[in-house]
Amino acid sequence: MLAKGGCPKTMLSISDALQALEGKWKLLILFALSDGGPKRFKAIARTVNGITDKTLSRELKSLEANKLIKREVYDTFPPAVEYTITPHGLSLEKVLDELHFWGLSHRQEVIGK
Amino acid sequence: MLAKGGCPKTMLSISDALQALEGKWKLLILFALSDGGPKRFKAIARTVNGITDKTLSRELKSLEANKLIKREVYDTFPPAVEYTITPHGLSLEKVLDELHFWGLSHRQEVIGK
Repeated sequence: MLAKGGCPKTMLSISDALQALEGKWKLLILFALSDGGPKRFKAIARTVNGITDKTLSRELKSLEANKLIKREVYDTFPPAVEYTITPHGLSLEKVLDELHFWGLSHRQEVIGK
Repeated sequence: MLAKGGCPKTMLSISDALQALEGKWKLLILFALSDGGPKRFKAIARTVNGITDKTLSRELKSLEANKLIKREVYDTFPPAVEYTITPHGLSLEKVLDELHFWGLSHRQEVIGK
């Protein structure tokens, strides 16, 4: 696949993927939700190291717009909001797997530890 | 893997990978170089749709710093500069493959065409 050296059609779908997953946070947020259970905002914020509330809030909206997560409001007092990964979001499993393996080799190659 | 739901160690390596590949251009530039042959700046700029010279120049420097590409200057008149993907850059093949497949399904799911 990689040997296609810039085939425009493949480039378009990679570009689609990168647009939906843009930035350094979205995949980490999805990974935090990847056990499939619903999570509250604060629980996600604790799992994703270093993210600010403002950024998390913006990223959650973008993930919802791309149908990668679902946001549900429960009519309790006070109202509870929970986020769940969608089947489409779960379909990123292989991308995350490969990024994980590559990240390990990159740490050895470049960061050297 | 994804079912690990935010395991901190896996998160670290995914985060390493995302930092090295940050933004929407780096993987597209690597894909443009992925046939393995050396390419000049202008040839890369033509293959990566929509990138400006300024951005391409900055991204090439960052890719070189992360040992994903190699920059070589030839002592000709005028001097020629060529960029080649490194073995470490080529090791992203599976990540690009999975992003490609996911990008296709994402287009169907969300963009709907």
